[in-house]
Amino acid sequence: MPDEIIKQSVDFSGWYQSVVQRAELADYSDVKGCMIIRPYGYALWENIQRDMDRRIKETGHENVYFPMLIPERFMKREEQHVEGFSPECAVVTHAGGAPLEEPLYVRPTSETIINATLSKWIQSWRDLPMLINQWANVIRWEMRPRLFLRTTEFLWQEGHTAHETEKEAREETMRMLDVYRAFAEEMLAIPVVTGVKSDNEKFAGAVNTYCIEGLMRDGKSLQAGTSHFLGQNFAKAFNVQFQSREGRLEYAWQTSWGVSTRLIGALVMTHGDDKGLMLPPKIAPVQAVVVPIYRKEDQKALVLGEIAKIRAEFGADVRLKVDDREQYSPGWKFNEWELKGVPVRIEIGPRDIEKGQVVMARRDTGEKAFVPRAGLKQAVLDALDAVQKGLYDRALKFRQERTTDAADYDTMKRALDETPGFIRASWCGDAACEANIKTDTKATIRAIPFDQPATFGPCVACSKPGKHQVLFA
Amino acid sequence: MPDEIIKQSVDFSGWYQSVVQRAELADYSDVKGCMIIRPYGYALWENIQRDMDRRIKETGHENVYFPMLIPERFMKREEQHVEGFSPECAVVTHAGGAPLEEPLYVRPTSETIINATLSKWIQSWRDLPMLINQWANVIRWEMRPRLFLRTTEFLWQEGHTAHETEKEAREETMRMLDVYRAFAEEMLAIPVVTGVKSDNEKFAGAVNTYCIEGLMRDGKSLQAGTSHFLGQNFAKAFNVQFQSREGRLEYAWQTSWGVSTRLIGALVMTHGDDKGLMLPPKIAPVQAVVVPIYRKEDQKALVLGEIAKIRAEFGADVRLKVDDREQYSPGWKFNEWELKGVPVRIEIGPRDIEKGQVVMARRDTGEKAFVPRAGLKQAVLDALDAVQKGLYDRALKFRQERTTDAADYDTMKRALDETPGFIRASWCGDAACEANIKTDTKATIRAIPFDQPATFGPCVACSKPGKHQVLFA
Repeated sequence: MPDEIIKQSVDFSGWYQSVVQRAELADYSDVKGCMIIRPYGYALWENIQRDMDRRIKETGHENVYFPMLIPERFMKREEQHVEGFSPECAVVTHAGGAPLEEPLYVRPTSETIINATLSKWIQSWRDLPMLINQWANVIRWEMRPRLFLRTTEFLWQEGHTAHETEKEAREETMRMLDVYRAFAEEMLAIPVVTGVKSDNEKFAGAVNTYCIEGLMRDGKSLQAGTSHFLGQNFAKAFNVQFQSREGRLEYAWQTSWGVSTRLIGALVMTHGDDKGLMLPPKIAPVQAVVVPIYRKEDQKALVLGEIAKIRAEFGADVRLKVDDREQYSPGWKFNEWELKGVPVRIEIGPRDIEKGQVVMARRDTGEKAFVPRAGLKQAVLDALDAVQKGLYDRALKFRQERTTDAADYDTMKRALDETPGFIRASWCGDAACEANIKTDTKATIRAIPFDQPATFGPCVACSKPGKHQVLFA
Repeated sequence: MPDEIIKQSVDFSGWYQSVVQRAELADYSDVKGCMIIRPYGYALWENIQRDMDRRIKETGHENVYFPMLIPERFMKREEQHVEGFSPECAVVTHAGGAPLEEPLYVRPTSETIINATLSKWIQSWRDLPMLINQWANVIRWEMRPRLFLRTTEFLWQEGHTAHETEKEAREETMRMLDVYRAFAEEMLAIPVVTGVKSDNEKFAGAVNTYCIEGLMRDGKSLQAGTSHFLGQNFAKAFNVQFQSREGRLEYAWQTSWGVSTRLIGALVMTHGDDKGLMLPPKIAPVQAVVVPIYRKEDQKALVLGEIAKIRAEFGADVRLKVDDREQYSPGWKFNEWELKGVPVRIEIGPRDIEKGQVVMARRDTGEKAFVPRAGLKQAVLDALDAVQKGLYDRALKFRQERTTDAADYDTMKRALDETPGFIRASWCGDAACEANIKTDTKATIRAIPFDQPATFGPCVACSKPGKHQVLFA
């Protein structure tokens, strides 16, 4: 583990790895590409899960659990799917002390094994819509792993639905994308762009892939969640048919959608600074930390007694941590909790108690102020709201500053060099232009945003008439 | 899926499989030995998880997540462990499109990979105790799978702890066993015997394995949870050492403990009857179901309106399901919800509304009575308490009736034939006697209960002096 946090401005990628490890969110394991999620990181994931699970259930989905091992013959049924995923799979060839007759793939995603079962569960239009979700681990072999962002094993939820009509399935795709957008913005304080992926970037087996994209502090875009309209591709491959209201046998229309532990990486890279993490209060495992300040042993009981009262007053309304460890100085603790991104810090010593006050510090602005002891709980709740909003506003402002409108290729290239971020430009829709730009600048189309202008300029690459306004990054 | 529920008295095993599938708890998948946990079964598991997770956290443990893939060299480090688990493992030999240099085992349990990391996390006595837990899927290759009871893949929690002293580790082993006992009795309404396993039945790599054992309605004992005192076995294999308070380098003392989706199997087999499941209210996904009764269309609005009021009154205090499906008759619905084990049923029709009453039926006793509409919520809450207690008492009575004291081998054999259940008998402690009894009668020592008499009769098998009183089943 690195001893120092690397400066964000010097080496963003090094900064990221050092912060994730130093803040004890996660660590590399002895298995290449697989991470260990440590207690602080897992508590963050549990907070994400709890709220996301509620949103998924409120939109009518039920949780299930499907096997992690997928027979090879299932993987091979949907042509685009097997092409996309086979090279990333881990394959079990031996089990129970003997070679297997048929290799089993560790799921990279579960469309295949779920659809093999849906073909039995779904008989009639009365069985639709089928709205299921699972929280699971998946494996996609990763050559250049990065904690949370790209790991061979990761945790996620994957929703799988089946509908009577294309219209309903398309509505579901959009509904879940909007659940992701709302979650990212409200809970993670990450402003995101919503849009559709180009054919080149879509999920293997989907008709359309929709995404939420956030802009990280290095000016790169991160895909934070995807919702796929699958059409009838998997239904046809797995024979998911139903008797329609008109008595005809029809293939179901399907969707799938997922978010993963990658969201934690997005959090770190959207809000963090040279001191470490900055966690949005709504999702922070610790919302406020109290550091007792005393020099003499006889002041200890007084200060800890006051802190016990504060803890009782706060109850379950604030996730409070009291750092009463004796082997560390207050200054050391301040750094530690700044590194861990705790939104609010409270300092309290004998003189504060005498004066009926405490010191309250905000992680996002660094502001430090005396707060009357009497109104402390409300002041902390207000500060948590302010940090939540402050982080969102700061990230939105950053994104606005880092979004460049490029009418031509030179402007685009200059922006990519000088103010890396989103480049908003016209595109003719031709995959060749997309590929040329990627080869030349490494920039890819991150999304074709839903928000489109009435008319388009010429394609930024080939100058032919533009068909879409797209975001490059 | 079987169409009919097989009678419990005719074929217990067939009854079990048919109930689990017909009640839509789980189903077999296309992967041999792996199950699909359906929404109703998964909701049950979520209720189990939520309460167990709270108990695990309240005893000071933090959740983490370790990789599912374990390098072969780790599996081989602890001799007993590899002997016990290797034959049950699934092995990944190919990944990312190429053969792996070192095979990776899908975890059957995580002592090895966790200890490889603890050797880095633990340096000093100040790092102890280390108290971690994870919720995860594991794979143990299963030749004769049974839904929830023995499946190749199952879900569980596994706690792993490290301590300064043997005493602390032994205390932790007992603390977690008692958490399991309390959970089984308070939440699942399953009375359990607590005790230690014979050497022959203990966990591969443990010094001692402690267990909770419940008696199922077929007179067989089911291990519902285990807590292992690992001594320093894994610490020595993985070099988990720490600087002691006295400045010496010492090996940590360890425990591990787990409960799994098998608890759902235990629930089914402890409480179920020929009509299907009987779920304890504290853990039931649906605590009360309301079935509207009306014949004419113009009564529908009246009845459903009254049910809407009931739902509003109940709020979050009762997990209520309103079954307003129109394609099924009330009688069909009664059977369905009895099959699904819902503790309380409410029936309400136009005449009930007129008379200010409803019909309330208890799943466990079958009792059906008119209840005044005004006091309905309290009546339902009281009934739920009564069912919870009733199920526990019924299971305890069954266990008492099915526990036979056997002073000699003939009595034991007769009891195994005539009233299968627990046989309480003296044992000399010799593994040969244990093996002989198993060969002769198929009965195994399920536990050496904590509760021991002052003196022992002769060993039930060899008549040498007894050393323990044990429970056979």
